[in-house]
Formats: sequence, structure tokens, C-alpha cells
Amino acid sequence: MVFRAVIDADILKDSIEAISTLVDEAKFKLGPEGISLMAVDPANVAMVSFELSSKAFDSYESTEGEIGLDLIKLVNVLGMAKSSDKVGLELNEKTHKLSISMGGLSYTLSLLDPSSIRKEPKVPSLDLPVKATLNGNDLRKAVKAAETVSDHIILGVDGDVLFMEAKGDTDQVRLGLTKDELIDLTASGPARSLFSLDYLSDMSKSLKKVNEITIHLGKDYPIKINFMIANGNGKVGYLLAPRIES
Amino acid sequence: MVFRAVIDADILKDSIEAISTLVDEAKFKLGPEGISLMAVDPANVAMVSFELSSKAFDSYESTEGEIGLDLIKLVNVLGMAKSSDKVGLELNEKTHKLSISMGGLSYTLSLLDPSSIRKEPKVPSLDLPVKATLNGNDLRKAVKAAETVSDHIILGVDGDVLFMEAKGDTDQVRLGLTKDELIDLTASGPARSLFSLDYLSDMSKSLKKVNEITIHLGKDYPIKINFMIANGNGKVGYLLAPRIES
Amino acid sequence: MVFRAVIDADILKDSIEAISTLVDEAKFKLGPEGISLMAVDPANVAMVSFELSSKAFDSYESTEGEIGLDLIKLVNVLGMAKSSDKVGLELNEKTHKLSISMGGLSYTLSLLDPSSIRKEPKVPSLDLPVKATLNGNDLRKAVKAAETVSDHIILGVDGDVLFMEAKGDTDQVRLGLTKDELIDLTASGPARSLFSLDYLSDMSKSLKKVNEITIHLGKDYPIKINFMIANGNGKVGYLLAPRIES
Repeated sequence: MVFRAVIDADILKDSIEAISTLVDEAKFKLGPEGISLMAVDPANVAMVSFELSSKAFDSYESTEGEIGLDLIKLVNVLGMAKSSDKVGLELNEKTHKLSISMGGLSYTLSLLDPSSIRKEPKVPSLDLPVKATLNGNDLRKAVKAAETVSDHIILGVDGDVLFMEAKGDTDQVRLGLTKDELIDLTASGPARSLFSLDYLSDMSKSLKKVNEITIHLGKDYPIKINFMIANGNGKVGYLLAPRIES
Repeated sequence: MVFRAVIDADILKDSIEAISTLVDEAKFKLGPEGISLMAVDPANVAMVSFELSSKAFDSYESTEGEIGLDLIKLVNVLGMAKSSDKVGLELNEKTHKLSISMGGLSYTLSLLDPSSIRKEPKVPSLDLPVKATLNGNDLRKAVKAAETVSDHIILGVDGDVLFMEAKGDTDQVRLGLTKDELIDLTASGPARSLFSLDYLSDMSKSLKKVNEITIHLGKDYPIKINFMIANGNGKVGYLLAPRIES
Repeated sequence: MVFRAVIDADILKDSIEAISTLVDEAKFKLGPEGISLMAVDPANVAMVSFELSSKAFDSYESTEGEIGLDLIKLVNVLGMAKSSDKVGLELNEKTHKLSISMGGLSYTLSLLDPSSIRKEPKVPSLDLPVKATLNGNDLRKAVKAAETVSDHIILGVDGDVLFMEAKGDTDQVRLGLTKDELIDLTASGPARSLFSLDYLSDMSKSLKKVNEITIHLGKDYPIKINFMIANGNGKVGYLLAPRIES
């Protein structure tokens, strides 16, 4: 198996961090067209899908295959890169190692046995009635505000308004975004679901810099959050199960 | 009772932080002319007085009344505001809640029962012989330097010099400000008192950005620290009891 | 004994921090030509030598003598200085105190009894076959990268390449600097030694801002790291014992 590629440090860092928010170890699918991954968090509450096209790379060469990586170590290593650095990746199939070079440094990371990593999740087929497109930072802001009063947040649609609401024992906070304040909103049915802020908070860290995210919502249904990375040459999707409103 | 107002986030933040440095919960007096408060810290060592004129607000409407607020929560909520944000405040007397809106977010904070909050202190009538006007940052600097050697600081006047002095077991630090380095100094009697740095440190955080503060001192007497906020449309006064020099 | 001097806060801060990385208390030799020091860390693993010429000072006056200082306190005090501050130093031999003045503040630090401080180490005479001159930040970068996989780092020369290498249980990292990437390299024999990152990490903090450092290496021999401070008016030398490669 061959895998050899060069990519901007920033793009690789953002990509790996979007995944490591949910899982510590992951199994990547490599192929001539690019890299992809599907993973579910240890508690089976959230799922991440990830695709990075070969076009996101400065140079890219890969046959079909699968590698397991320790994302914590990888994030650590990429933390040494300056944003202007190029990162070189090369698989050594014999030694089961990935070599990562940047700015004169060269790391050699042992691969994980893919069979030791949780299996890819089955993606549930969901037909969610609400689709909203908004600035990633608006969701981030709502999540941070919600954290000041509760561990949970309600996301839903009320007429032409996408709302995010959190209720503490005595206090509450609400962010309402009208159709004008959103990039787009289409609703073919009611939507109101409760989510754990633990998960949304981690996910929303990846959204700070994202101009446009799409969320799909239903009534007591999971939320889907999709956004592009790598200047449109990659995409990340999160799926988060709802909690029951008490 | 009616209370409805809009104010710069920065002004409100500075105001509340100047109070929350001493007390976690506070009882505000509202009225057509503005807001005011008097509070004493739980240990009865320090007192804060606060006034914010209706002129400090973009819009302001209030009847006479009293509300109790959890300042920790309020500081937390205001921490979400950008400095350019406007903050809207509105009292809902029926639900006993204060609604706080800013940048699309709307918080609803439960009021505290005013009778559950410590009574307003009696302000002692003090005739202190020294009055000095100086840059707030000079006091802040002296307090931070004093913390490197001791838990206490001595403030006093020696001839034409306002001095701040701290003595550790083996080391000491002293900041002397001559009349030239002060904005003003008048002394009609001796002044030298010892204060706990715990309190002065918290208080002096609010003074960092204040160009002009007035302090009043005596011999083993409390210190009074007064300064304007909200571009001259509000004022804060601290009173701190002395410790006995051993 | 007389000692009276004025110096840039920045220069004094950098000087003291380069020493305090190894020892908490130190015995300085004072004299008409300047200040110097030799100290060994409590575990006898590393040594620092330090010289600061009278030319590094704005004004300088000293007779021959020796003073003991608590470096932790001194670093703390200097932390209060702005980088543009001038720091005045003056010894009071009668009270056994050093007075430090800056920006209106004046500190009085008790001297330590020089006889209570560890004796000056004997400097081993070493003839190390490799001498490399490089940017201080390159060593700093290698040390930080090594810390992501191990507690130790190997420094050595392989042909025309100065290499720094660390091996964890499964992963490794290597920085190779060719003669072109170094300022200079001369090798009259083999060099490869293992060092504890604990020590090198502390030392390399002082190297971040240093354009040119010289290191001397041998085979399982100590490393010497030398660099200039105070715009060429001072120098610091570290000597670190090797660990045995297992």
C-alpha cells in the first residue's frame, strides 16, 4: 500500500481536530480520490463523518487502504507546526509507521491496528423537516451562552425563527435568529429537540471559523451539522442524538 | 414597578464588576434619576457605594423600587457581550425576573428577594486628614508590588510624599509619589494605616483603567477610595477598615 | 564593599532567568569589571556560568566582593518592571540588603549568607570533538518536539548533519540540520549523547530569542551550550551531563 502526500499544516490541523473532538483513535480510508472516515463516540451519542479530497493536498498519491491513527498524538504533533508550514505524510507499510515531516522535523508515528478500533457506525437514514444555513459562530455563541445557565440546549424552529434556548433552575437564555439573520431556512414540519451541551460545545469549537454551516432538525430527533473545510475540498458532518426533555 | 433601560455593555460590565469585587449578591435601588447601591462585604471589613445616573444610559425609564440580583450570574452573562454591544434591561415584576438582551441573545435572570440580602450598612462619618488624587494605575501598581513581599500594605503621607509600603519577613517594597507625581495632595494631619492586600487587590482591579482616583487617609483609620465611572455619569466609593500594625 | 548600578530591566531579567533555570539561590562575584557566577544544580547534573560586563550597564560602580541572592524573589520583583524600565541596584553592606528601584518602586531584598549557598563547582576540562553554531530557536524547537514522544533526547552528528532525535515506546521524532542550515559545524570525531529533556527544556527557554548559540558535543559526553547576552556584553554557558543510553 502506498500513501504519500503534502498538505498545508492549517488544513490538516483543522481536519484532525474536527474528528478528535469525538474520538481519540480513528480508522481512515485512503484511496486515489482522497481520505475519508466515519466514527462514533465511545458513548454512542455522536457521530462524525469526514472527507478530504486529494485536491486539498499540494501533492497526493495513494492506493486503496485503511490506517488506524492515534488522534491525540497526531494533534500533539501538528501543534508543533506553524500555520505556514507544509506537512509531508508518508506511509511505511513494512514498519507500520506514518512519517510526518514539517519545518525540518520528522516524526514517525506507529499506526494502530485498524481491527482494534471501533467499527464504523451505520448511519441512520433520517428525514429531518428543518434545514437552516447559518454562520458557524452564531451556533458557537448560542452554545457558550447556554453553558452559563444549563447543561442542555434546545434547538428548534418557531415560525420563521431558528431558536436556541437553555433553561437553568431559575434563569434562562435564548437566541432567536430570524430568516433575515440566517443564510437560509426551510421548514416542512415542526422542530424542537434537546441536546447535551458537552457534545455541542466540543463540536462548536470547530465551527468558530466556519462562515457557513447547515443544520438539520426535527422534533425530538438528532441534529445534523454539516460544513465544508479545506476551501471547499473537504467536508465534515456531525450527527448528535437528542436527549429526552423532562 | 417599571424598569426598562439600554446601556453600553462596557459601562454596565465595569459597574457590576466594581461591586462584585466585594459582594456576590446586591440590592439595587432604582428610581427615575438612576440606580444606586450600598453594600458591605460578608466580613464587615469593606463597603462599596455605587451610583449610576440615568444619563449613563442610552434610554432609561424607571419608577421607584428595589431589586435583588445575583452579581456572579450577572457578571457571567455580561461576559458574553462584546464591548461594542448595547445591553437592554427590562424588569418583569410579575415573574420576578430581569430580562437582559444583547447581540441577539436574551437572558432571563430570576431576581433575589431583597429581604434575603444583607441590610445596607450605616456609613460611618469620617473626617480624614489626608486627601490625595492620583492615577488609579499607580495604586494598582503599588498593590501588585506589595503582594510580592507581604499580605499587607501601609499607606500614608510623609511630608509631601504619599507612600505605599509593604514589609515581608526579610524584604520590603516602597512606592513614594511626590506631590509632582500626584494629581493633588492636601494633608491637615498625619496619615499612616495598614490594610489587607486581599481587599485592596480586588478593589484595585477596578482602578486599572481609571485616570483619576481620590483617596482619603488618616492615622490607623479606614481608607476611602472614590472614582467616577461611565464617563462621569456614575461614581463608586470604597471604604476599607484598617488592620492593627503589630 | 560598594555596589551601585543601573541597567535595562530587560537585560537584567534575561540574565537572572538564564541562571534561575538551574538554581534558586546563587552567589554572585562582583568586581570593577562586572558580575560573574558559577553554579551547579542541586542534583549535580547541570552547571551554569555567567558573566556580565560593566559595559552592559548604564552606570556601574563596584569593589570586589560576593553576594548571595534569592533568585526566585529577584525574578518575581523584576516581573514588575516594564521592558522600557531602568533598574537601579544598590548594595547596603551594613544592613545586608540590596535595594532595587524601578519605575518609582523601590524594593529592599535581604542578601543570603554566601557561605550558606552551594560552593562553586569545579569546571571539568573537556575536549569535545564537535562544535556547532546554530540559531537558538532551532534547539528550542527540537526540544519541544522531543517532549511530545519522550523524556530524553539524543544529540549528535552524522556526517555533515547535526541531528536531534527522541524515541518513545512506539513513536519517534528527528530534526536534522545540514551544514547549510547551521551557522557553522566542525567535527574532529564522533558525537552522540543522550540528555534529559527536563534540563534541556528549562535551558532552551533562555535560547528562544538568541540568534546564535554554540554547542559542543562528544560521544556519551556532556554538552556545552554557550551564548551571548546583553548585546554582546555578557555570556552564559551551560554544561549538562549525559545519560546512559539503554
